[in-house]
Amino acid sequence: MKLSDLGEDRVIAELTKKLPLSTEVKVGVGDDCAVIGTPRDKQWELLKTDSLIEGVHFTKDADPKRVGWKALARAISDIAAMGGLPKYAMITLAVSPEEELARVKAIYSGLKQAARRFNVSIVGGETSRSLGGLFLSIALTGVVPKGECVLRSGGRVGNALYVTGRLGGSIRGKHLSFIPRVEEARWLVTNFPPNAMMDLSDGLGADLPRLARASGVGFEIARESLPLNPGCSPEDALKDGEDFELLFAIAPSKTGTLEKAWKERFPKLPLTRIGQLVAKNGKAADTEASSTNPSNSKYGFDHFA
Amino acid sequence: MKLSDLGEDRVIAELTKKLPLSTEVKVGVGDDCAVIGTPRDKQWELLKTDSLIEGVHFTKDADPKRVGWKALARAISDIAAMGGLPKYAMITLAVSPEEELARVKAIYSGLKQAARRFNVSIVGGETSRSLGGLFLSIALTGVVPKGECVLRSGGRVGNALYVTGRLGGSIRGKHLSFIPRVEEARWLVTNFPPNAMMDLSDGLGADLPRLARASGVGFEIARESLPLNPGCSPEDALKDGEDFELLFAIAPSKTGTLEKAWKERFPKLPLTRIGQLVAKNGKAADTEASSTNPSNSKYGFDHFA
Repeated sequence: MKLSDLGEDRVIAELTKKLPLSTEVKVGVGDDCAVIGTPRDKQWELLKTDSLIEGVHFTKDADPKRVGWKALARAISDIAAMGGLPKYAMITLAVSPEEELARVKAIYSGLKQAARRFNVSIVGGETSRSLGGLFLSIALTGVVPKGECVLRSGGRVGNALYVTGRLGGSIRGKHLSFIPRVEEARWLVTNFPPNAMMDLSDGLGADLPRLARASGVGFEIARESLPLNPGCSPEDALKDGEDFELLFAIAPSKTGTLEKAWKERFPKLPLTRIGQLVAKNGKAADTEASSTNPSNSKYGFDHFA
Repeated sequence: MKLSDLGEDRVIAELTKKLPLSTEVKVGVGDDCAVIGTPRDKQWELLKTDSLIEGVHFTKDADPKRVGWKALARAISDIAAMGGLPKYAMITLAVSPEEELARVKAIYSGLKQAARRFNVSIVGGETSRSLGGLFLSIALTGVVPKGECVLRSGGRVGNALYVTGRLGGSIRGKHLSFIPRVEEARWLVTNFPPNAMMDLSDGLGADLPRLARASGVGFEIARESLPLNPGCSPEDALKDGEDFELLFAIAPSKTGTLEKAWKERFPKLPLTRIGQLVAKNGKAADTEASSTNPSNSKYGFDHFA
C-alpha cells in the first residue's frame, strides 16, 4: 500500500503507534510542540521540528531571505502556541552542490534575522548534499513556566473561540513575512489563560476540528464573524493555510475583560470572537464549518493525498 | 559562486558567521553537539541534529529497519561523544507519496528499536512530501552532569590518544548496525575523564585533525598501532568513515590504570592507544597522518566537493 492511499493523518497514526516515551514526556505527538517536564520543575521544555521543502512549501523563485525567515518563524509560532518562549535552534540544510552560495547565504540571513528578533540562539545544525531541491529543517527548543503551558486538549463546552489578526490569502505574501504571536500568547497565558490554544498553520477549517477533537468537544462558528484579509471570502479564511495566527478557547465569563484589555495592549491587532465549543453531538450553528462536518478532506493540506 | 567551488567546511564557515548566541550557549557549532547550561545548573543540555539521505547516506535497497536504527544511532553516538545520555528525539521524514507504507513502517520500527535500547523517548516530528528520495532527519536532546561534559577542545600536548573498537570497512555492514558507545563514554567520563573526546564519523584521518585543531595542538599516530577490522589496511582505517567509535585524549599518567580497568569492564571491546597530541609545530612521527598534513581533501567526505 502506498502512502498516498492512506493520506497524511493515517500514515502518522500508523507510524506513531507504541512510541517509546518516558514519564517526563507530558505531551508527545499531537500538539503544536512536545512538552517535557516533571512536577518538580518550574519550567517545562518545549520541542518542535518543522521543515520547508522547495517545490512543496515555497517556489524556487521565492526571496531566499524570506524563506529563511519563514522557516524559523513557523517553528517559533508553534512554541508561541503553547504559551512559551523560543530558545535554541538547529538548522538542517540539504542542498545541491550546484546551488549558488549567495542564495544559501541569503536564506541564513533570514534565519538569523528571525533568530535575533525573537532572542533565539542558533546553536548548530548540518549541511548536506541534496539530490532533489533545497530542504530546510528547523529543530527548536523553548521554555514555558509549568503553570502557563496551554495545550490543544483543555477546551471545555461553552468556551468562547477567538482568533488573532485576519485570515485568508496568506499565499499572496504574508506566509513569507508573518510575525509569530509570541508576545500576544505570553500576554494571554499570564493575564487571561486560555483553556486551549494552537496556531493556525493549515487553515481554520482544518485546525479548529483538531483543537475540538483533542479537547473531546464539538464547535460552532459564525461564518459572518470571521476576520478576513482584504479580498478574502469566509471560505478562503477556512481553507487557506499559513495564517500563523492564534486560535484559542477561553471561559465565556472572561470575554468582556479580555476584549477590553486586548484593545489597550494590542490596539493594532484585531482579536475576534468567532464561535464557541459545544457538546460533542451538539447541534452546530454553521453546518459547513462545524463539528458535524469537520471534513479534513475539504479543508487543509494533506502531504500524501 | 557554487557551493561545490568552496567545499563543505568553507560553506559552513560562511553560513555560521555571526550566529545569534545567548550566554547560556557553552558550545555552539563545531563540536559533536551544542551544549546549553549555566554555572548554576547541575545538568547541561546537549542538542544534536543529523540527517540520512537516500542516495547519499544509504542506498534504496538498504534494509529499511537498519536505516532507521542507523539514523537514530548516529545522533546518539554524538551525545555519547560529549559524555552524555540521550533523552528526547524528534523525527523528520520527507518521502514520496508513492512510497510503500511497509518501507516507512520498517524505518520507524528501526528507530523505535534504537530508542528503546538507549532509553530515548520519541516525542514528535513531522512527515512531509519529498520531491526527491527519502530524507530522514533526527533532532535529539541529551543531558550530561556539568562537570562531566567532554569537548573536542580540551586536548593538551602530551595527551595519549585512544580509540575504542576496530576501524575501517564499516560500509560492509557495521554502518547500519553499530552500537553507539554510550555506556563506554559514561564509564570514561566518570572514572577516567578524558581531556577531549569525539566520535569517529568521517574517518580517523578527517576526525583526528578536527580534535587537534579544536584543542590548538598537533598530533602524531603510529600507523602500525591502528586497530583494524578484518580485511582492512591502516589506510582504510584512516579514510573509511562511519566507524562510530570513540576517539579521546587523556593524561599519559592515567594510561596504565585506564587500560587495566577497561579490560575488566569491557573485556570484549578493544581499547587501543594510537598516538599522542604534540605541540602545534612539533615534528610528526607519521608524516602521512599527522598535524603537518591533516589534508581534509585526502581523508573524509565532503558533501559539496
